[in-house]
Amino acid sequence: MAELEITSPTNPRLKGLVALRRRRAREQSGTTLVEGYEELRLALDAGVEPRAVYHCPELMLDAAVRHDVLDAARDRGSDVVRLGRAAFERTAYREGPDGFVAEVPAPGLALGDLVLGAEPLVLVAEHVEKPGNLGAMLRTADAAGVDAVVAVDPVTDWGNPNVVRSSKGTVFSVPVASTDLTGLLGWLGDHGIRLVATTPAAESLHTAVDLTGPLAVAVGAEKDGLTHAALAAAADRVRIPMAGIVNSLNVATSAAIVVYEAVRQRR
Amino acid sequence: MAELEITSPTNPRLKGLVALRRRRAREQSGTTLVEGYEELRLALDAGVEPRAVYHCPELMLDAAVRHDVLDAARDRGSDVVRLGRAAFERTAYREGPDGFVAEVPAPGLALGDLVLGAEPLVLVAEHVEKPGNLGAMLRTADAAGVDAVVAVDPVTDWGNPNVVRSSKGTVFSVPVASTDLTGLLGWLGDHGIRLVATTPAAESLHTAVDLTGPLAVAVGAEKDGLTHAALAAAADRVRIPMAGIVNSLNVATSAAIVVYEAVRQRR
Repeated sequence: MAELEITSPTNPRLKGLVALRRRRAREQSGTTLVEGYEELRLALDAGVEPRAVYHCPELMLDAAVRHDVLDAARDRGSDVVRLGRAAFERTAYREGPDGFVAEVPAPGLALGDLVLGAEPLVLVAEHVEKPGNLGAMLRTADAAGVDAVVAVDPVTDWGNPNVVRSSKGTVFSVPVASTDLTGLLGWLGDHGIRLVATTPAAESLHTAVDLTGPLAVAVGAEKDGLTHAALAAAADRVRIPMAGIVNSLNVATSAAIVVYEAVRQRR
Repeated sequence: MAELEITSPTNPRLKGLVALRRRRAREQSGTTLVEGYEELRLALDAGVEPRAVYHCPELMLDAAVRHDVLDAARDRGSDVVRLGRAAFERTAYREGPDGFVAEVPAPGLALGDLVLGAEPLVLVAEHVEKPGNLGAMLRTADAAGVDAVVAVDPVTDWGNPNVVRSSKGTVFSVPVASTDLTGLLGWLGDHGIRLVATTPAAESLHTAVDLTGPLAVAVGAEKDGLTHAALAAAADRVRIPMAGIVNSLNVATSAAIVVYEAVRQRR
């Protein structure tokens, strides 16, 4: 089969690819972008089936070695399209492009489709805004063996290319969903999962509360933390001890500390 | 006393300020830049005595309210210099400048000048490169009440403006130092501090090792972790349990998990 090739930077297919930098276009197409060899390799390792992989041999350092991702994509039925340099550079969104960009199904399941283990551990992120923080939470969730990460009233979608990048591929391996607070509370109730809210205003330390059994650990927005409604709905509120001048840890750091305390208690 | 005012963007004083974006210039002057009201407020709260504060009322949203930092700087003997808009924009290094930039003493003490508590807890960062990771570690160190953070063979200096920014002022409140591995090991030995190395290759979990008593927790470079020399010199090597597809947590996240386990064990 002859490989597709695009050399014109004004090709309409490229226009569609560039549009995926916008959330609205991602929501319409149900897809997002993965750029760079390492990131694509991680997504493929997590089982992603790209719609299409675009590559530009002129920009690659080790074209021969790096063909593994093209072979893997072809095996999964992806279009593989070769781009001329000008065409590729139109699609690339990061500095120093390395000749790989792919369109893949946007990550995210319906709440009802999440599969939970016998003693579920879920991470809930309410209103968290920064892609880097969401990505860091996904890496933690992956490492800690969390069953799912649920975004409540998300400001940033799971398909945001900066979430994809900072998650190091884990946005495709950790089950993720999005909902509102009512949806979350209904789902937690249906599964008998206890909600524990992390807030600097709590009386109990995170190490003093039982974090075994079916559990959801919730963290809130970078600036204002969890909403009053989420705090009120939680079975327990916990705080991380803080001795210093700053009144809160980074949200992804807080999530990691509490999730790993739950892991410790469960061993 | 009449306030100094600079309107020309080519004023030599501004040239010196712009030069502080480079490490070499920071090392020569012993100073660094703090930009933005919030950041300057945090630095002042941490006790910093700015050499000079530059402000541009035209760029400020709440000039009247925000004069508190200028008053605080004057009280500490800082020069306060008013800049015209063109002059200010030459000095600003971030997008959306808010009309404040200051030259302050670069953070960092000699190892011998660090003051340790009765049961010291020290965080060691070997070859850590990304300013955002160093800043996140400083926020954790501040919150956890760590005695000092020591950079070993640092790739990035403590005065790097992006470390200052991402540390949220804590680079000025947490005692920091820089050294090489030999210097570190000598200093730890002098103070009877045990070195515990964090590495995915360790046999022991971080929760299974005694982290009480005089302790230094070491983390390594983003890509390659700790050096063989640092691993060999450690009294214990510990790993954080990892269940997922990715072979390492973010370095600042790892540091937070192990440091907070030490805090838990010490309570």
